[in-house]
Amino acid sequence: MKFNSLKKVLVGSPLATAQARHERLSKTAALAVFSSDALSSVAYATEEILLILVLAGTVALHYSIPIGFAIAALVAVVVSSYRQTIFAYPQGGGSYIVTKDNLGTLPGLISGAALLIDYVLTVAVSVAAGVAALTSAVPALYDYRIVIGVGFVAAITLANLRGLRESGNLFALPTYLFIGFVALLIIYGLVRWAFGWDPASHVPDPSVAAVQDLSIFLVLRAFASGCAALTGVEAVSDGVPAFKPPEAKNARIVLAWLGVILISLFVGITFLTRHYHLTPLPEQTILSQLARQIFGDGVLYYTIQASTMLILVLAANTAFADFPRLSFFLARDGFLPRQFGSRGDRLVFSNGILILGTTAAVLLVIFDGSTHALIPLYAVGVFLSFTLSQASMVRRWLVRREPGWQWRWWLNAVGAATTGLVVAIITATKFTHGAWVVVLLIPLLVMLFMAIRRHYADVAGQLSLDGYGGPPPMEHTVLVLAGDLHKGVIHALQYARTLSPSVKGVYVELDPERTRRLEEKWIKWGMGVPLVVLSSPYRSLLQPFLEYLDHLLALGENHMVTIVIPEFVTKHWWQHLLHNQTAFLIKGTLLFRKNVVVTDVPYHLR
Amino acid sequence: MKFNSLKKVLVGSPLATAQARHERLSKTAALAVFSSDALSSVAYATEEILLILVLAGTVALHYSIPIGFAIAALVAVVVSSYRQTIFAYPQGGGSYIVTKDNLGTLPGLISGAALLIDYVLTVAVSVAAGVAALTSAVPALYDYRIVIGVGFVAAITLANLRGLRESGNLFALPTYLFIGFVALLIIYGLVRWAFGWDPASHVPDPSVAAVQDLSIFLVLRAFASGCAALTGVEAVSDGVPAFKPPEAKNARIVLAWLGVILISLFVGITFLTRHYHLTPLPEQTILSQLARQIFGDGVLYYTIQASTMLILVLAANTAFADFPRLSFFLARDGFLPRQFGSRGDRLVFSNGILILGTTAAVLLVIFDGSTHALIPLYAVGVFLSFTLSQASMVRRWLVRREPGWQWRWWLNAVGAATTGLVVAIITATKFTHGAWVVVLLIPLLVMLFMAIRRHYADVAGQLSLDGYGGPPPMEHTVLVLAGDLHKGVIHALQYARTLSPSVKGVYVELDPERTRRLEEKWIKWGMGVPLVVLSSPYRSLLQPFLEYLDHLLALGENHMVTIVIPEFVTKHWWQHLLHNQTAFLIKGTLLFRKNVVVTDVPYHLR
Repeated sequence: MKFNSLKKVLVGSPLATAQARHERLSKTAALAVFSSDALSSVAYATEEILLILVLAGTVALHYSIPIGFAIAALVAVVVSSYRQTIFAYPQGGGSYIVTKDNLGTLPGLISGAALLIDYVLTVAVSVAAGVAALTSAVPALYDYRIVIGVGFVAAITLANLRGLRESGNLFALPTYLFIGFVALLIIYGLVRWAFGWDPASHVPDPSVAAVQDLSIFLVLRAFASGCAALTGVEAVSDGVPAFKPPEAKNARIVLAWLGVILISLFVGITFLTRHYHLTPLPEQTILSQLARQIFGDGVLYYTIQASTMLILVLAANTAFADFPRLSFFLARDGFLPRQFGSRGDRLVFSNGILILGTTAAVLLVIFDGSTHALIPLYAVGVFLSFTLSQASMVRRWLVRREPGWQWRWWLNAVGAATTGLVVAIITATKFTHGAWVVVLLIPLLVMLFMAIRRHYADVAGQLSLDGYGGPPPMEHTVLVLAGDLHKGVIHALQYARTLSPSVKGVYVELDPERTRRLEEKWIKWGMGVPLVVLSSPYRSLLQPFLEYLDHLLALGENHMVTIVIPEFVTKHWWQHLLHNQTAFLIKGTLLFRKNVVVTDVPYHLR
Repeated sequence: MKFNSLKKVLVGSPLATAQARHERLSKTAALAVFSSDALSSVAYATEEILLILVLAGTVALHYSIPIGFAIAALVAVVVSSYRQTIFAYPQGGGSYIVTKDNLGTLPGLISGAALLIDYVLTVAVSVAAGVAALTSAVPALYDYRIVIGVGFVAAITLANLRGLRESGNLFALPTYLFIGFVALLIIYGLVRWAFGWDPASHVPDPSVAAVQDLSIFLVLRAFASGCAALTGVEAVSDGVPAFKPPEAKNARIVLAWLGVILISLFVGITFLTRHYHLTPLPEQTILSQLARQIFGDGVLYYTIQASTMLILVLAANTAFADFPRLSFFLARDGFLPRQFGSRGDRLVFSNGILILGTTAAVLLVIFDGSTHALIPLYAVGVFLSFTLSQASMVRRWLVRREPGWQWRWWLNAVGAATTGLVVAIITATKFTHGAWVVVLLIPLLVMLFMAIRRHYADVAGQLSLDGYGGPPPMEHTVLVLAGDLHKGVIHALQYARTLSPSVKGVYVELDPERTRRLEEKWIKWGMGVPLVVLSSPYRSLLQPFLEYLDHLLALGENHMVTIVIPEFVTKHWWQHLLHNQTAFLIKGTLLFRKNVVVTDVPYHLR
C-alpha cells in the first residue's frame, strides 16, 4: 500500500480504458511532441559536419554549404515519402508494421531492430547535446555533464510514465520557444548580412592545420554526420493515432510543417555559421558561438541557450513516445516478452519507457556525456528503416494500385533509392568510427526476436488443446511438515484435512527424546492424522524428507504430492529472521519440482 | 546438487551423529588447539607495553620489567582460578554458563556479550599481528597487509567449517614450532647474557623524546595493554568436553602446562627486549628485532618469523572453537536466533563460524590491519568475563560446600578480586582510546539477547496448547486464477478439484473479445468448474481480484481461501523471464495475508 501511494504521487492516479480516446493531440501539440527530435538536431548537425571537414584544415570548411543543401534536399524527399505512408496507413505507419506488411517478417524485424537502437541513441545524443548547450553558457557545469545528463533522462522518464497528454503540454512551450528564437536569430543574422552591418564575412578563417587530405570520402563522412538532422522525421507517421480526428489529414499537415521548419532552420544556421567563419571549439557549441556573434552576450543569448537546452533534452521525448509503442507492436506479435505488451496503469507502456530511460542513461555514462562520441553510431538505424519503409510503400502501390498509385510509387521509389544510398554512405564512412556496433547489433536483435517468437510458439504448441484427450486421472497425497506440534501446526493440519482425506504428518527425527514428546502430543492433538517419523543419521533435516518424497513420487506418473508447511507470520520483519529457516530451505529445494506443490500455511502471530 | 558437490570438496563429507564421540583431542593436540591464542600473544604483548611507555620517552622503558612480572603473576592467579572451574564444571565451564548458574541470567548475559566481542577481536588482533610478523621479515608485503589478513581469515574459516579434529592436526605443528623456537631464542639469549658474549646491555637506550609525563596512569595504561597476553587463557576450561577422557583431569593438566609456558615465554621476551634496549619501530616488530639481534639475519631468524606468523594467524582458531560454542549455548537458551543452535553437517556450528569470520574480516579492513589500532578495544571483555566467572565460583563454593571448598573459595576470591581490579584499570586507562566502544556494545548486546528471548517466549505462549479448546471449524474456498485456458490451466484445475469440491475459476477481463473466446473454451474443457469473470475498468489485473478476495474473506473469520496459480516451469532459466509475470505479482501482493494460501501448480514445459 505504501508503494502504491508513492507511485500515485509520482505518476498520478490510474486512468480508465474509456478515457483512452480523449488522450489525443491537437496539431500544434502534436508538432511539439513529434517534432522536437527532428528540429532539435539543427542544434548540433551543422557542428558535426564542420568537425569532420576541419580534419582537412580550415580551407575545407566551405564544403559545409553544399552539404547543407544536400541534406535539406534529403529532408524534402523523406518528408514527401512519409506523407504517402500516412495516406496509406492512417492507423499509424511505423516502419516495422509497414515493412512487415509489404516485404515480410524478416525485413520488418530488421527495421524494428534498427529503430529500437536509434531510439535509444536519440535519447542519449539529444540529452548530451542539451547539456552541451547548458555548459556552453555556464562553463563551470562542464565537469558535471554526466550527472546532469542522467538527471535529465530520469526526469523525462518520469514525465512519460505520467502519460501522453500531460507530456504534450509539458513539451509545447520549449519547442515553440526554440523555433521562435532560432528563427529570430537567423532573420536578424540575415538582416545584418544584407545591410552589411557586419564586417565578419571579410575576416579570414582562423587557421587550423589539416590532419587529413580533403577527399571525397571525407566530404561524404561529413555529409553522413550531418544526416543526424533527419532522425525523428518518421515520428509523425508512427504516431498518427495520437492525433485528433481526422488523424491522417492532420498528421500530413504537421509533417509538412515539420519539413519546412527543419529545412529553414538547418540551412539558416549552416549559412550563417559559414558567413561568420566559425570553427568548432571543444568548450562551446557552434550554435552558442553564432548566437553570441549575432546577439552579443546578453539576455537574448541566454534565452536561446536555455531554449536549445530545453528542446534538446525534451527531444528525447519523441523516442519515449515511439520506443514503447514499437516494443508493444513487437510484443503483440510475439517477438518481445509479453511484459512490453501491457499498457500499465496510465495508458502508457511503462516497461518500454523504463528500459529506454535506463539504457540511454548507461550510454551517457559510457560515452562520457559527449555528443561527438555518440554520433558515429547514430542515424544508421534510422536510414535503414527509412529505406525499408519506403521500399515497402513502393511494393504496396504496385500491388494495390490505389488512387494516385502511378505518381505515388515514383515518389516513394525516389525516397527509397535516396535513403538507401545514404545508408551505404553512412555505413561505409562511419563503420570504423563506431557504426560497426550498430551493424553487429541489428542482426543480433533480430535473432533474439526470432528466438523469443520460437519459444512462445513452442509453448503454445505444448499447451494447445487441439486433439487433446483430456488429463489423465490424478492421485494426490498431502504431507504436513511438522517440527513440533503447536497451534500453528494444528492450523496447518486442519487446513490440510480440508484438502484431502489422506493427509500425513511428517517429522524428521534429530533427537529421539523430542520424538517421544511429539508423539505424546500428537495422540492428543493430531486430529487422527497419521505421523510419519523419518530418522536422520546425518542430522540433515532435508535429506530424509527428500528420500521419502522420491518414494511417494515413484508411486505413479500422475501422483501429485502437496507439501504443507506451517509458517509463522511475525508482526515485525526482523522477527521473521528468528523463524522459518526450515520452511525457506525446503521451498528453495523443491521449487518447481515436477508433481510437487509446496504450500505455506501462514499462522499470524500478534 | 552442484552446490552440494562444491560444498563436499571444500568442507568434506557429512559425519553421522554417532561419530561425534570420537572427535576428541589428546592432551598435546588440545594444548595446540586451545593455547595458540594465549601463547601467541607473547609475540605482541611486550611491544604493546613499550609502545605506551615510550610516550614518556626512552627513560620510561625500564618499567617494562616490573609490568612484565605483574602480568606473569596475573597469569598464575587466573590459571589457578580456572583450574578450580574445570574441577567444578567437567562438562565445560564457559563463563556464560558458570555465571548464569551461580549469579543469575543478567550477569551471565553480560559475560556472554563480553566474550562474543572479545572472540571477534581475538581473530582480528591475532591475524593483524601475524601479518606484522610476515611484513617484518618481508617489508615488500607491507602494503598488502589487509588483503593478506582477510585471506588468512577466510582460510581459517574454511578449515573450521571442515571440523575440529582436522583442525587439531592442522594446528599442532605451528604451535609446537613456535614454543620450541621462542624457547631456543630465550635460552640462547640468556646464555649470551650469562657469559657476557654481548656488550648490548651497556649500550645506552636510543633517545626518544617524551610527549607525555611519566605518570602512574601511563604505567597502568601500559599494564592494561600488556594484559592482552591473558586473552584466551579461558579457552581450555570452555572446551573440557573436547578432551579425551578423563576430560577434567586432562584439561587441568593442559591448563597448568599452558600457564607455565605462557609465563616463561612472556617474561623471557620482556627481559631480553629490555636487555638489548630495543624500542618499537613502525616497520618491524619487537620480536623480529630481538630474533635478528640474537640469531642474526639467517635461517633461524626466518624460521622464528614464520612460526610466529603461523601461530598468530592460527591463534584465531581458538576463537573459532569458542565463538560458535558460546553462540550455541546462547541460542539453546533462546537468547540468539535458533540458526546458531544447529550443528551443521560436520559437527561444527557453521553459522557462528561464518559470522565470526565475516566480522573479523570487516574489523581488519576498518582498522587498516593494525594490531596497535585494535589493542585499546581488546581485553575489556575477557577480563570482565574472568571476573564474573571467578565471582560465580566463589558463590558456588560457599553455597555447595563441596570437598576442599574452604581453600578453593579463597583461591577464586583472589582471582575475582584481581581480575576485577584489572577490568577497572583497563576500562579507565583505555576508555577514550577505544574501550568505550566495547563498554557501549556490551549492554546493547545484552538488550538484544533479552529482546530475542522475549520474542521466543511470546511466540511460545501464543502457540501453546495449554488450555487450548481445539481449532474452530474451518471453511475453505479454492480459486484457480486463469488468464487463458490451456493444458497448464487444465492441470491446475484438475489439481484444484482434488483439493475441494467447491472450486471456482477466476478471470480478470481486460478485453471482452478474449472473454468470449475463453468462455467458449471453458464450456468444453472447464471440467464443470464455474468461471467468475471480473471486470477491470482500470486495466489492472490485480485490483478487481483483490476486491473479490476481500469479499470472500469477509464471509467469516475462519474462511480460508486457497489461490491456485498455474505456473510454467521452463527448461532454461532465461525462458522463465518470458512468463509468469502475473503469478509473481500476485504472490508478492498476497504473501502472508491472513487466511490466504497461495499455491503454485507447476506445469513443466519441455
